[in-house]
Amino acid sequence: MKITRKVKLILKNYESDNPGTKGNICRILMNGKLGGTGKLLILPVDQGYEHGPARSFAPNPEAYDPHYHYKLAIDAGLSAYAAPLGMIEAGADSFAGQIPTILKLNSSNSWSTSKDQAIHGSVDDALRLGCSAIGFTIYPGSDYQLEMMEELRELAFEAKEVGLAVVVWSYPRGGNLTKKGETAVDVCAYAAHMAALLGAHIIKVKPPSEHVEQEESKKIYSKMNMELLSDRVAHVIQSSFNNKRIVVFSGGAAKDVEGLIEEIKQIRDGGGHGSIIGRNTFQRPREEALILLDRIIKIYQNKD
Amino acid sequence: MKITRKVKLILKNYESDNPGTKGNICRILMNGKLGGTGKLLILPVDQGYEHGPARSFAPNPEAYDPHYHYKLAIDAGLSAYAAPLGMIEAGADSFAGQIPTILKLNSSNSWSTSKDQAIHGSVDDALRLGCSAIGFTIYPGSDYQLEMMEELRELAFEAKEVGLAVVVWSYPRGGNLTKKGETAVDVCAYAAHMAALLGAHIIKVKPPSEHVEQEESKKIYSKMNMELLSDRVAHVIQSSFNNKRIVVFSGGAAKDVEGLIEEIKQIRDGGGHGSIIGRNTFQRPREEALILLDRIIKIYQNKD
Amino acid sequence: MKITRKVKLILKNYESDNPGTKGNICRILMNGKLGGTGKLLILPVDQGYEHGPARSFAPNPEAYDPHYHYKLAIDAGLSAYAAPLGMIEAGADSFAGQIPTILKLNSSNSWSTSKDQAIHGSVDDALRLGCSAIGFTIYPGSDYQLEMMEELRELAFEAKEVGLAVVVWSYPRGGNLTKKGETAVDVCAYAAHMAALLGAHIIKVKPPSEHVEQEESKKIYSKMNMELLSDRVAHVIQSSFNNKRIVVFSGGAAKDVEGLIEEIKQIRDGGGHGSIIGRNTFQRPREEALILLDRIIKIYQNKD
Amino acid sequence: MKITRKVKLILKNYESDNPGTKGNICRILMNGKLGGTGKLLILPVDQGYEHGPARSFAPNPEAYDPHYHYKLAIDAGLSAYAAPLGMIEAGADSFAGQIPTILKLNSSNSWSTSKDQAIHGSVDDALRLGCSAIGFTIYPGSDYQLEMMEELRELAFEAKEVGLAVVVWSYPRGGNLTKKGETAVDVCAYAAHMAALLGAHIIKVKPPSEHVEQEESKKIYSKMNMELLSDRVAHVIQSSFNNKRIVVFSGGAAKDVEGLIEEIKQIRDGGGHGSIIGRNTFQRPREEALILLDRIIKIYQNKD
Amino acid sequence: MKITRKVKLILKNYESDNPGTKGNICRILMNGKLGGTGKLLILPVDQGYEHGPARSFAPNPEAYDPHYHYKLAIDAGLSAYAAPLGMIEAGADSFAGQIPTILKLNSSNSWSTSKDQAIHGSVDDALRLGCSAIGFTIYPGSDYQLEMMEELRELAFEAKEVGLAVVVWSYPRGGNLTKKGETAVDVCAYAAHMAALLGAHIIKVKPPSEHVEQEESKKIYSKMNMELLSDRVAHVIQSSFNNKRIVVFSGGAAKDVEGLIEEIKQIRDGGGHGSIIGRNTFQRPREEALILLDRIIKIYQNKD
Repeated sequence: MKITRKVKLILKNYESDNPGTKGNICRILMNGKLGGTGKLLILPVDQGYEHGPARSFAPNPEAYDPHYHYKLAIDAGLSAYAAPLGMIEAGADSFAGQIPTILKLNSSNSWSTSKDQAIHGSVDDALRLGCSAIGFTIYPGSDYQLEMMEELRELAFEAKEVGLAVVVWSYPRGGNLTKKGETAVDVCAYAAHMAALLGAHIIKVKPPSEHVEQEESKKIYSKMNMELLSDRVAHVIQSSFNNKRIVVFSGGAAKDVEGLIEEIKQIRDGGGHGSIIGRNTFQRPREEALILLDRIIKIYQNKD
Repeated sequence: MKITRKVKLILKNYESDNPGTKGNICRILMNGKLGGTGKLLILPVDQGYEHGPARSFAPNPEAYDPHYHYKLAIDAGLSAYAAPLGMIEAGADSFAGQIPTILKLNSSNSWSTSKDQAIHGSVDDALRLGCSAIGFTIYPGSDYQLEMMEELRELAFEAKEVGLAVVVWSYPRGGNLTKKGETAVDVCAYAAHMAALLGAHIIKVKPPSEHVEQEESKKIYSKMNMELLSDRVAHVIQSSFNNKRIVVFSGGAAKDVEGLIEEIKQIRDGGGHGSIIGRNTFQRPREEALILLDRIIKIYQNKD
Repeated sequence: MKITRKVKLILKNYESDNPGTKGNICRILMNGKLGGTGKLLILPVDQGYEHGPARSFAPNPEAYDPHYHYKLAIDAGLSAYAAPLGMIEAGADSFAGQIPTILKLNSSNSWSTSKDQAIHGSVDDALRLGCSAIGFTIYPGSDYQLEMMEELRELAFEAKEVGLAVVVWSYPRGGNLTKKGETAVDVCAYAAHMAALLGAHIIKVKPPSEHVEQEESKKIYSKMNMELLSDRVAHVIQSSFNNKRIVVFSGGAAKDVEGLIEEIKQIRDGGGHGSIIGRNTFQRPREEALILLDRIIKIYQNKD
Repeated sequence: MKITRKVKLILKNYESDNPGTKGNICRILMNGKLGGTGKLLILPVDQGYEHGPARSFAPNPEAYDPHYHYKLAIDAGLSAYAAPLGMIEAGADSFAGQIPTILKLNSSNSWSTSKDQAIHGSVDDALRLGCSAIGFTIYPGSDYQLEMMEELRELAFEAKEVGLAVVVWSYPRGGNLTKKGETAVDVCAYAAHMAALLGAHIIKVKPPSEHVEQEESKKIYSKMNMELLSDRVAHVIQSSFNNKRIVVFSGGAAKDVEGLIEEIKQIRDGGGHGSIIGRNTFQRPREEALILLDRIIKIYQNKD
Repeated sequence: MKITRKVKLILKNYESDNPGTKGNICRILMNGKLGGTGKLLILPVDQGYEHGPARSFAPNPEAYDPHYHYKLAIDAGLSAYAAPLGMIEAGADSFAGQIPTILKLNSSNSWSTSKDQAIHGSVDDALRLGCSAIGFTIYPGSDYQLEMMEELRELAFEAKEVGLAVVVWSYPRGGNLTKKGETAVDVCAYAAHMAALLGAHIIKVKPPSEHVEQEESKKIYSKMNMELLSDRVAHVIQSSFNNKRIVVFSGGAAKDVEGLIEEIKQIRDGGGHGSIIGRNTFQRPREEALILLDRIIKIYQNKD
């Protein structure tokens, strides 16, 4: 695998990491159709844990099978595939070496009575299953945020020691945050910044809205131009060590294709490093999903 | 022991497991009268912990003796015997090698003031007692669900490392769940799916009712045919990685023989991998129990 | 030391234990005047922790001295002496090898604001002090019961690994239990059964009353004859793995000699394996205590 | 250093301890002007942590300097010097070998919102700083008493393993105790007894008042003569394993010299093993403090 | 690097530390323009974590880049640079050996619902990143103060063992403290004293106000002259082991230059060892910040 100049530059930003970790970030950045462009597209399948199997897979019942997602990610030429323990275990051997995997180490579920998640995987699991990275969600703002950050600290340290990359889902939620505030531009930028400070290599946030949540932030944001999503994405990227950390954006709730495509163009225009799209793909028939993913890839290739 | 093609196919689904763990799943699948069929029948005796000795054993006082259950499971030709620490300790040497055992690592009791269980056994106990698997209960929905899942994570990882299989009792309970919701079809399927995601090799759930508990699930279930228990069992199997994980169903509260037999036929017809039946057997006189177990075995052998 | 046939049979019930643990159970069963009979009489001195020194020892001030209790247990020909850390430390060397000791690892005190106990000793303490067993109290029913059971699990595993025996004080208390329910026959039998399931070698319970506490148990107990204490003791013994675990009964609050003697006869008649008597002995002058203990021994020797 | 017969007899009471620990107890008992008498006088300086620096040291500003206390203890010929981590660190090298030190491992402070203390030192700190003992406070009666006792258990075990002595400050406080009850005679004796049971080598309590706190204790105390402080001290000594454990008494809040001298005479007459005096010394000018300490020493030498 | 006599004298105060730790304190004291003077000036950049990226860096957008701060600290000739994990990781290699770094191990954030912080770095992180010290915040007074102190204990012990220095941010907050009380002179002195007792090498507090918070302290402070900030600083220094521990003062909220300069002169006049200034520098354009930092350095050089 010959590395491109773009990827080399990105890897330079991870200057404190050991060659093992850099190698795994490189593996993700060089894989699939976006390999070498410095952009990436990840398939996450933790919907079953979060919303239950029927709500996740009934619209496209082939997706009940863990192999389905491995194949989809491979065939679509994605950068990586992310899922919780059981999903990865169920295909780790069949698809070994065919696509970088991210072991999602914690999850919530629809019955949760607290804004917290259960840790259901470990760095040792990631190693035995041949993963390139661990994934971990924090809920900044939640009453459990400090504990979640401390759990991440421990797992991230362990991962870096054994040469894995660390992907952080930074999803503000709970505590004093309003529902609308969860995707506010100040909140998203803050969430991305904290993930970077916590040592994340790749940060996942939601596309930020125009809303400004924190009273103390209103003055400073009133002077900044945040009208377009691309402006707000650029602000999140800037807040992530001035573009020295990779930031990918979720697709959010399933929406119509054109809405999604438009959003992704803005993410690209704002300098976002890519997308992480679950429901919008695996809930459609495979052929439709492949076409959609190809369109997204073209956007990040600047061909659309 | 020559392994059948059916069992070989099932073992292929546990592709990430080491030979030790696969060997122990195989041992359970090849044991007893159902050995090699891909179906299994397990005797669990944790009733004494959950409901007290008199309510469990007074109807058939021979059952106060731990040896009674070992003998019953062996003589009936069952697949495995599951019980908490003391019960296994009391017969582990006398019956060593005669039947695969599952060490149940946690239990609740009738006085419990929280929807949680005490962990009273360890993977090291399972090893010293020659068990093939550990058993662990989670209560999805409970205020303690996250802790229980995290406990399972640790124990399951440890078990897999030393070549044991992991059996998960996934019993929704507590939190925002209604009593009726505990056996709702959406809830049972979700519970089975989470157990699979948590890395279970064998999943135990209750036979699901027609009730749909979660508001957000009603739309999706309204399009699915869930009238017969066999339909609902098939949905649970599908939700367990599309039949890539073994799912067994409990017998529930003691009921009349024909009701139980009918239920088990539906479980078989829906593709369930077997049953795990306690009170319905050991609370009857031994001879009656042996006859009943033989009838159940015949169902899973497709002879009834 | 030549082992009797009776003790050999009892040791066979501890089939999963290593020779170290069996040796220590044997040491207790072969010690003192009841040595070899399969019965045992233990002196416990944790009163000072539970009720304070003056309430415990002022009636017989010699008992303030830790050596007093060692000597009493040795001179009376008892089976073992049980006490918390400091009491054992204060005589462990002077009386080394003269009587098996049980290190009580946890205690409550009169000021406790929760139904829980402090752990104040360890398995390593038991080893360095030459003890034969550890002792641990659980409060089934208490809001802390799950934690206490989990603490026991850990300590019991450790003890068995290094060849010590495990004595469990199973004292229902707190939570939804009524005061009267603490000694109810259903509750005592359940408490003894859980201790057995938790892996205890020797179980200590209070003599059960005729009261049935749990609503769900009333039907089943209404069919059983529980009029005499000896009937109830027999039920507790049956609930302890059908007499496969040693069960000893406490003497309860200090009472008159004849009441105590009568109670102990019933315990013997019900098949109880012995008594564990504290306040009733060390609060009397030494000579009186020796006479009383001799009478109790004679009961268990079937000489009274 | 030649050991006296008196000290030899005291050391015999610590029969389960290893030579390292006995050596350190011996070092304290043989140090300073009381060396060899079996009595001891300790300087504790944790006032700064408990009440703040100005309230502790402003009356005698030289005392802001950690070296001041080392020098005072050495020049006065005391038995040992006790202080928290930073105070010991600041003089451990300058005064190495010149006086036995006790590392106080936990402290409260005036802002505490719970009756608990922070652990701020470890057994390993005590070793690296050349201390002879660790010091630890428990609050019997407090809602945190069980946790504090469990912390002590762990630290005391560790200390004994590496040959250090264990000094326990047993200060009843919180929970159901009244303010007056904190120094009640029944409560002090109980607190000393529990410290002994927890494995303390040296016990520190407050001088007990005549008040009897616990309802259940009133009858038993009504028969005992507790009029004089010396009687009450004798009762505390008896409650500490019948004089088999060293008990020292605090000086309490700063008071006039004669009041303090009178109190100490009673402590001596009751058989107390010594005093532990902080504020009463370091808040006076050095010369005054040296004179006072000399008077106290003379009392314990039976020269006053 | 030749060490000055002044620095040698300061190092003597850390008499219990190993050569590794002394070497790192020395490195900080000998670095930059204040090197060798015994004074120090530190740049802390944890604002992003505490207040979010826009509020921290939007006034001077170059500061979004982690390299900016390294360069500023180096070019201004500061003593050390302190920041959380991600910020240090992002420049540790580029600027290795160019300035001593302090890894800040915990942080709060604007959404926190409790007066506590998340630990997001470890001593092992500090080592792999080549840091000279760890930084840790405690909130004396907070309901979480005991836990925070215990966390510090563990981290500080570990740091000292591997030759790192320990910098403690002692910021009273929460519990019974009033807002005004957080910077009260009695509270600041107490906070500094506790940090010293907890084993800090370098203590950071806020410049104390004239307010006296604690009722019990009013009498003692009424006799002391606390009118000038320099008096209050001197009192804090005295409370920090009589000038045996290094104490630096924060700049507080961004203020006008002359106000800041005046404050720093008073800190110097009171014997403070230096300043730790964040927002006041990196929120100004680089050239302005360099001029300001130079003015501050001149003050500590006694040139202003």
